[in-house]
Amino acid sequence: MRPQPLSFTNWGPPGRAFDASDKPAFWTFAQRILGISQDSVIPPADPSTLRIPPTAAGDALLGELRGLLGEDNVATDGPTRLLHSYGKSYRDLLRARRGELRRVPDVVAFPGSHKEVETLVAIASARGAAIIPFGGGTNIVGGIEPSPGAPGVVLTVNLRRLNRLIELDEVSQVARIEAGALGPELEEALNRRGFTLGHFPDSFEYSTLGGWLATRSAGMQSDARGKIEDMVVSVKLVTPAGTLVTHPVPRAATGPDLNQIVVGSEGTLGLITEATMRVAPLGHRVYRGIMFSDFRSGVEFIQHCWKAGIPPATLRLSNPEETELGLTLKPRSGFWRHLLSQAVKAYLCRVRGFRLEETCLLIVGWEGHRAEVVRQERQVLRLARAHRGFDLGRTAGDTWYARKYEYPLLRDLMMERGVMVDVTEATVLWRDVLSTYGKVHAGLRKAVARYGHPGYVGCHLSHVYANGVCLYFTFGAPQEPGNEVAQYLRIKKLAVDLFVESGAALSHHHSIGYEHLPWVEGYLGPIGLRALRGLKASLDPSNLCNPGKLLPSPESGLDHYWPGWKPRDPGRDEP
Amino acid sequence: MRPQPLSFTNWGPPGRAFDASDKPAFWTFAQRILGISQDSVIPPADPSTLRIPPTAAGDALLGELRGLLGEDNVATDGPTRLLHSYGKSYRDLLRARRGELRRVPDVVAFPGSHKEVETLVAIASARGAAIIPFGGGTNIVGGIEPSPGAPGVVLTVNLRRLNRLIELDEVSQVARIEAGALGPELEEALNRRGFTLGHFPDSFEYSTLGGWLATRSAGMQSDARGKIEDMVVSVKLVTPAGTLVTHPVPRAATGPDLNQIVVGSEGTLGLITEATMRVAPLGHRVYRGIMFSDFRSGVEFIQHCWKAGIPPATLRLSNPEETELGLTLKPRSGFWRHLLSQAVKAYLCRVRGFRLEETCLLIVGWEGHRAEVVRQERQVLRLARAHRGFDLGRTAGDTWYARKYEYPLLRDLMMERGVMVDVTEATVLWRDVLSTYGKVHAGLRKAVARYGHPGYVGCHLSHVYANGVCLYFTFGAPQEPGNEVAQYLRIKKLAVDLFVESGAALSHHHSIGYEHLPWVEGYLGPIGLRALRGLKASLDPSNLCNPGKLLPSPESGLDHYWPGWKPRDPGRDEP
Repeated sequence: MRPQPLSFTNWGPPGRAFDASDKPAFWTFAQRILGISQDSVIPPADPSTLRIPPTAAGDALLGELRGLLGEDNVATDGPTRLLHSYGKSYRDLLRARRGELRRVPDVVAFPGSHKEVETLVAIASARGAAIIPFGGGTNIVGGIEPSPGAPGVVLTVNLRRLNRLIELDEVSQVARIEAGALGPELEEALNRRGFTLGHFPDSFEYSTLGGWLATRSAGMQSDARGKIEDMVVSVKLVTPAGTLVTHPVPRAATGPDLNQIVVGSEGTLGLITEATMRVAPLGHRVYRGIMFSDFRSGVEFIQHCWKAGIPPATLRLSNPEETELGLTLKPRSGFWRHLLSQAVKAYLCRVRGFRLEETCLLIVGWEGHRAEVVRQERQVLRLARAHRGFDLGRTAGDTWYARKYEYPLLRDLMMERGVMVDVTEATVLWRDVLSTYGKVHAGLRKAVARYGHPGYVGCHLSHVYANGVCLYFTFGAPQEPGNEVAQYLRIKKLAVDLFVESGAALSHHHSIGYEHLPWVEGYLGPIGLRALRGLKASLDPSNLCNPGKLLPSPESGLDHYWPGWKPRDPGRDEP
Repeated sequence: MRPQPLSFTNWGPPGRAFDASDKPAFWTFAQRILGISQDSVIPPADPSTLRIPPTAAGDALLGELRGLLGEDNVATDGPTRLLHSYGKSYRDLLRARRGELRRVPDVVAFPGSHKEVETLVAIASARGAAIIPFGGGTNIVGGIEPSPGAPGVVLTVNLRRLNRLIELDEVSQVARIEAGALGPELEEALNRRGFTLGHFPDSFEYSTLGGWLATRSAGMQSDARGKIEDMVVSVKLVTPAGTLVTHPVPRAATGPDLNQIVVGSEGTLGLITEATMRVAPLGHRVYRGIMFSDFRSGVEFIQHCWKAGIPPATLRLSNPEETELGLTLKPRSGFWRHLLSQAVKAYLCRVRGFRLEETCLLIVGWEGHRAEVVRQERQVLRLARAHRGFDLGRTAGDTWYARKYEYPLLRDLMMERGVMVDVTEATVLWRDVLSTYGKVHAGLRKAVARYGHPGYVGCHLSHVYANGVCLYFTFGAPQEPGNEVAQYLRIKKLAVDLFVESGAALSHHHSIGYEHLPWVEGYLGPIGLRALRGLKASLDPSNLCNPGKLLPSPESGLDHYWPGWKPRDPGRDEP
């Protein structure tokens, strides 16, 4: 059976939604900052009524693909092609909800093995078809959308049938896994043998190993395990020039690191079919919530954890807005037992001198050997007390852990009610954390407040490293009717501009795709770009692999994605 | 003043030598296994008598270089060019001792700033001169030797004047350091501020940051800190196409990792002028020696340390031969107090059942917060006892630590007495450690025993990672008079062949240069090679940067370096 992508207009699969019916505090909050109410729902266009252009794939190509994969694994029907048209960015869902189609892939292929992918790429190369790899379809930077500017036929390759754990080497603690395995598929296979990859991005339920590798994904335990690029031991990449296979060795001094060329290539060099990944024995897991009096105190506490040599596996510090949002998501039934009961609030304010509108929630988690976890937990709590942190205990941590994959569904809820909501993230060195936070937060605050309500600018330190952190912003405002895309682009551009001016990375884990493309040349510089173009030309000389993504080119259709984009002049442009 | 490279015929600087005059046990051992005695010294050719070919650099090039750098920083004199001709491999020292010159650089430049390097590369590019970066000159794979096959003028660029700590960001724990800084220079500058890079390769005293980056170097604390590629945050690389500058950010998702393209490029893409590196506060340091009954027990203990989540910063397990050699290097004065006193020996043999000819020494070290170090030390010692390890205490560790940079000097001592001695190293996954050790050890054992004496095959696990280790072999045998290079090549080739057949990396930290070049195509595969060639063509289209190294090309002069090299047929070739 063919794997099914997520629903066309929403994050989750059909039928899954965020249940806010029992969360009155949330609706009060949403009404106040965004002016929306629970029942003002604007239904999306019905996908089945959309006019999908006929496939441009010729009989010759289709015949060869069917000969290779079988009839069932080569789709040219409208619904299947539709479901492979967009990723899951705000812009994607906006267009999907409004029934706006741009370019739809001409054919979707579902290969079942590395060998089939090799032949498929050879067929596509010979026929000059563009090849777009597709895993779970959760990309939020336009990475899987056919380029408006690329000529010819577009072949999207859904890799989800390649989902096996090929081999687990328990002694070396490495696992060979096919690239199309979804997070839960590969974790289940590893867990059965007592191991875990331990990579849990927000999209975990619906995204694949290959997608993680192609975009340099980060999971929630990145403080301990690093990003996906820190876990990769070897890869197989099928390129138009042939297949690249790297060696599964712990480290090497054999020239530039080919693994690190494949990771982050966003489908522009070829299709990743499998990878050997570092895995770890399943460990004991503990999460807690700790309140800090303000964002700065939380940041200083986290820095101190790292300096003291006791970094937990997860550190996720929310700013006051995000903390407040989180508290409103408590269901009504938990009213008497909710985390910050009136008594606790009173204690924090009167005894500890917290100001509730500045209070920040930190989620902290440990994983590993039980004795080690308990010891580190104790050390960290001692340190938290020294930083005036207020321990909410394991229940707060467990609640967050149990719900952690639900937050993306909140966006659907908002969009159904005419709210623009998106995220933007980047890393900065420790030295620049508070200044960058302040700059981006202030800029976004001003920008979202222009639509008749205060708007929302949540932020959390999502990933922490010895040398710096990822700042992850969520911004929301009422949509500007008739001008929704332009509104989004204005605010997204502001956020990225402010990040880049602060010396931040263009992205920490969402990657480039189309969404960050206008900044790439400035960020990588002419020589960095030249190097990547040299690589691309050597492996994909006809530019068939995900054309137009990552590296600006005529196929990118930048005018289409960023009409009128021009570099910001910090001296003259607002804010 | 111009920086001085090491002496032409030896490892250390002029005058430094290994003092074995007070180590009678060593000479007894050397006599037995290699047939040499303390006073049978063959003096090297006098470098001052060598006929150095005149420079091929024309007046135009020299004029421009002198205009840029000043007279003093552009050398065409024989002695300076001679000292930049070879690295420090066995083959290099053999040729140097015999006064055999191949190609000598035509001019040696000593730029003093990044800006000067940029202009210098532009001048060399315009004039079509080959450019070889030179740091400390300790490379042992031929990486800094002018290619026999490259046409035109060879300009060697000694980067040692670029040796400043430009900036230390104590909050983010990163330091911007110029690439020509020697290990002691950069550590001293960082130590003064309470920080350390913590990268201590065997060559530490004489090698530079740029050299470490260019070759993917590994230090002795790699178990805790990783290799140099794990410590790099950003780089500046001057290429003929322009300068690549990457961003100092903790992590990024902005395409293939440009840092990891620069690291390991071995001078073939350009000259590294500076890097931002992760640094750490200076910590408490403890080293111990532990004896294990055999190599397998030691390996199992190390695996257990990692599995238990308590990997020390350094783990260095010697095989029995290397353990025996180490014990012979005790000076006479320490006879009554030496590590394995007769009483200890008797205890180990009679009570613990050790067989001395199988006993293996493990050096284990911790660095960091004092309380953590002490706690981990205690845990590891408990684990060692469970693996029947016999703790020699901190004195054994301190002795090793104090002498760790002296071992390369032993090679000079051997070569002066007509002994072939070289090293070869590679990484394997944990699963393959004992089988690969067994295979390579047996092959080398047989190979070195063909010259009238048993010969020497020492080995240690030099670097340990979660997924595997580096096996570092040292092999020695009496030289085959008149056939020294061929003898060396035969044995070196055997070792690399056996490593590669075992699935090992071609090198863990010595890199490719010329010495591993014949295997590169097979190891990287045609597509890997194609990718690296694409990169090279994009940044160095005229192949001026260290031509012939890393990537096989007509300039490599492989016939010169590996006359008659052909792939091994494991079914037919010995051993």
